[in-house]
Amino acid sequence: MAQPYVYTVYRGTFIQTSCPPDSSTSPRTELVRNRGALWVSTADGRIKGSDWQAHDDQGFRALMSRMNWIDVDASTTNGFHVEEIKVKIVRASEGRNEFFFPGFIDTHIHAPQFPNVGLFGSSTLLDWLEKYTFPVESKFGFQADQLQGKNTLPESTPASALRIYDQVVARTLSHGTTCASYFATIHVPATNALAALCHSRGQRAFIGRVCMDNPDFCPSYYKDISAEDSLSASRSTIDYIHRLDPKGVLVKPILTPRFAPTCTRAALEGLGKMAAEFNPPLHIQTHISENTNEIALVKELFPEADSYAAVYDRYDLLTKRTILAHAVHLTPEERQLVRQRDAKISHCPASNSALGSGIAPVRTFLDDGIKVGLGTDVSGGYSPSILEAVRQTCLVSRLLGHTASFKQSKTEQVQENGHADKKPSLDREKLSVEESLYLATRGGAAVVDMAADLGGFDEGMIWDAQLIELGSVQDVTQSPLSQQNNGVCSLIKSGPVGNVDLFETETWEEKIHKWVWSGDDRNVKAVWVGGRLVHSRS
Amino acid sequence: MAQPYVYTVYRGTFIQTSCPPDSSTSPRTELVRNRGALWVSTADGRIKGSDWQAHDDQGFRALMSRMNWIDVDASTTNGFHVEEIKVKIVRASEGRNEFFFPGFIDTHIHAPQFPNVGLFGSSTLLDWLEKYTFPVESKFGFQADQLQGKNTLPESTPASALRIYDQVVARTLSHGTTCASYFATIHVPATNALAALCHSRGQRAFIGRVCMDNPDFCPSYYKDISAEDSLSASRSTIDYIHRLDPKGVLVKPILTPRFAPTCTRAALEGLGKMAAEFNPPLHIQTHISENTNEIALVKELFPEADSYAAVYDRYDLLTKRTILAHAVHLTPEERQLVRQRDAKISHCPASNSALGSGIAPVRTFLDDGIKVGLGTDVSGGYSPSILEAVRQTCLVSRLLGHTASFKQSKTEQVQENGHADKKPSLDREKLSVEESLYLATRGGAAVVDMAADLGGFDEGMIWDAQLIELGSVQDVTQSPLSQQNNGVCSLIKSGPVGNVDLFETETWEEKIHKWVWSGDDRNVKAVWVGGRLVHSRS
Repeated sequence: MAQPYVYTVYRGTFIQTSCPPDSSTSPRTELVRNRGALWVSTADGRIKGSDWQAHDDQGFRALMSRMNWIDVDASTTNGFHVEEIKVKIVRASEGRNEFFFPGFIDTHIHAPQFPNVGLFGSSTLLDWLEKYTFPVESKFGFQADQLQGKNTLPESTPASALRIYDQVVARTLSHGTTCASYFATIHVPATNALAALCHSRGQRAFIGRVCMDNPDFCPSYYKDISAEDSLSASRSTIDYIHRLDPKGVLVKPILTPRFAPTCTRAALEGLGKMAAEFNPPLHIQTHISENTNEIALVKELFPEADSYAAVYDRYDLLTKRTILAHAVHLTPEERQLVRQRDAKISHCPASNSALGSGIAPVRTFLDDGIKVGLGTDVSGGYSPSILEAVRQTCLVSRLLGHTASFKQSKTEQVQENGHADKKPSLDREKLSVEESLYLATRGGAAVVDMAADLGGFDEGMIWDAQLIELGSVQDVTQSPLSQQNNGVCSLIKSGPVGNVDLFETETWEEKIHKWVWSGDDRNVKAVWVGGRLVHSRS
Repeated sequence: MAQPYVYTVYRGTFIQTSCPPDSSTSPRTELVRNRGALWVSTADGRIKGSDWQAHDDQGFRALMSRMNWIDVDASTTNGFHVEEIKVKIVRASEGRNEFFFPGFIDTHIHAPQFPNVGLFGSSTLLDWLEKYTFPVESKFGFQADQLQGKNTLPESTPASALRIYDQVVARTLSHGTTCASYFATIHVPATNALAALCHSRGQRAFIGRVCMDNPDFCPSYYKDISAEDSLSASRSTIDYIHRLDPKGVLVKPILTPRFAPTCTRAALEGLGKMAAEFNPPLHIQTHISENTNEIALVKELFPEADSYAAVYDRYDLLTKRTILAHAVHLTPEERQLVRQRDAKISHCPASNSALGSGIAPVRTFLDDGIKVGLGTDVSGGYSPSILEAVRQTCLVSRLLGHTASFKQSKTEQVQENGHADKKPSLDREKLSVEESLYLATRGGAAVVDMAADLGGFDEGMIWDAQLIELGSVQDVTQSPLSQQNNGVCSLIKSGPVGNVDLFETETWEEKIHKWVWSGDDRNVKAVWVGGRLVHSRS
């Protein structure tokens, strides 16, 4: 039996993104590195303090002594002094280039689509939904259950569905995702099962039963029976999740109208009202303006609304706790409305490239003061890794300046402002590695309305963190030219973990860049959520 | 001591891309799967035959018996019948979802830039060269050597440089790259060392000493002393490589004018003549039309030429053995010239996105009848993996339709053809997984002018291949809901290798898609070049 302890004391290097001084403008963030010790309370999983003087053994001993701490693993089971406080020590190795980094936040992921990762052919949004998405999601429950509307038991979920949900939670944890905002399916039992699995595996999660009741757009084999049923089924999952985690420490419900075309006006109206019933109001998530055909469809279905964003706003679904996924083609007026309502955007670059949707103008959102986080959008996105989303965020921002819509908007700005001499600058649109990491952590925290709790290592924040290991630098003693290579050449056995190759010439910031561009789940050695160790690399 | 054997017989599943019937049009290629046995001669590493009837034990025994083969590993050291032919058997496991796939061909990679993988900040081509590239390349030799121009010994290469070259060869092999066309540096000893390392590690390679003698553009600390020196140093590496591998079985020289701005007219002219001196003429590689500022620079430096492509053509550097990297912004006239000369294009999507260069119109090249392969372009590209290049090829082709230059060219076409009703189709530009894999294998083979030898499993081709393992499907007996998860949740220990998650619902083609989108070097179990096992996953 493990010794109980009051704090876990993390020792080593801590890297995070800085909080930009003025939160209303584009976060020109930087990486911040601290070396020393940081401690987390066992009771509530929050950071209680740090000491950057304790970066060597002498400094650490001084800290231990000053705090009256005793290492539970080093001490015997008896003989404690009454005034001594037991702590557990977790070290990041300098020699192995290990560091603690805030856990990633995936602000948009469809858990049931996980079996379709990598399967999308050459489809675009609307045909992709029909061909790939609705069929796989429909298998997460039974229409009989749906008709009765009463079965809420997670255990009645099909075994194959449970297996998929278990895998997606384990897989995202292994990539360092400590918090995810999940779209489930329309099925109450399976949605409740996803909540239960996140709760037991220890992943922070927002769980949304998908509302889709519009018979004109939803397939007959996969839809809510009516607006009323859509609302009551949603309420049923909310009740289950509130019973599972009454204080919402780990798992919370999130209202999830799939997107405007799948929902009747009655359902949208009911969901907007339901969100406001609660105190604080419920979170909401949906899709917006991903694809030009989709936008045309919304215009056709909702002729009374001025814009796609206005549809949601009309039904009070545009709130400060609303996550809008994609937002690739928002108009300036829509951006203004989103900002006024303080609704948030989930940027899903891998998905937007894979489905050919386009490139969202993230710099413009940030300059507008809109909060942005990253989403994998599995399985429109082909990867459950937020590190991959970080890479894609950087990459597509470097292509944005080549798009027709970007050049057009710049031309219009120049005409409006009369600055004929101002050429559109491609550089402004580029998001740095630092900024993308910000979006993956602090940005995501703001998007799920937990900016004070998540995304960094500030005192009082929750310890949702990952231990990254880049590996050591290989010592070469023998010239490769003199080696006999008559047999099989082995892989580089040496220092590197995964594909991060270090050559002792890198600054620490460059090592972070190498992690971002070459790293993967092999570099995620351990993951904590709320102070609990929830993943350890096998 | 291993038994000598006449053939290696590979058993299991073989997957490759089909050769499109008409090679002059866009390769609407398909994946082809065969199951059975294929045998490779130990003497020359070429495929001598295959038997798709031998897909089960009975069929395989019949093959063994018919061919008079005996398994060297199963037999004792004596007691062979005279007429029996010894063979070695290598099996791909069906249960582990293993299959043989043609080795990847990297048609454009800068070996000395490997330490800069992931380091490029927000730079674009010209400032990236100055800030990141020239400094790292300059460390691969000593100016004293360069001044004498006589030192050709690989052993005089700096130890750090040898280590980098050794790592890049091992690393690319581990990603399944069986053939690479390398840019080295200006240094003769280090270039020779790269050739020696490829030769001893067993990677098929084209090795190019970089020519850059234009003092107006090259930094003083890193340039050829003169056009004459540039030519004689290049000749020196050619001689070394021809001595190392007289028949060019594995390693061949390739003339490498860095790109037009770095070369004087005298150097370009001399290189064009040098290529033609040999029989067959030497391979040539260079960069073209990567970035709009670069194109403007070439226009300024070579006012006598009609276009960037015309500069190379003027000096007889546009041949059927020329690899042109990037080609992002070629004009229709340049494409016509490239096709007339049958020069080849190396498409480097990861690099073109990372440096914000733009998106090359690959479909247009293919429809024009231009041969295209893929390049990692390390370290403009952030990954040494051609599988990553395959993914990026698919992704950027889905964004191409959103670019301003694409929309403009389509508008012009419509105006010219008078088909006002023909809207630009985004779908036409999309490259499928199958097509991208074609470019990575058969396409690359055509680019290095070895289409008859590499890129597929046709009889007579060289056995440059990789054994891919996706892993087995996990058997789940216990419901994840009933598991006690009070401790650390382990990673999915189960079947999957790396990140490829299979659910027993996939067709074989879908498994290939999953490999492409989720796979990495963990899935590369073994690699052969010319029939020799050169990498085995540790």
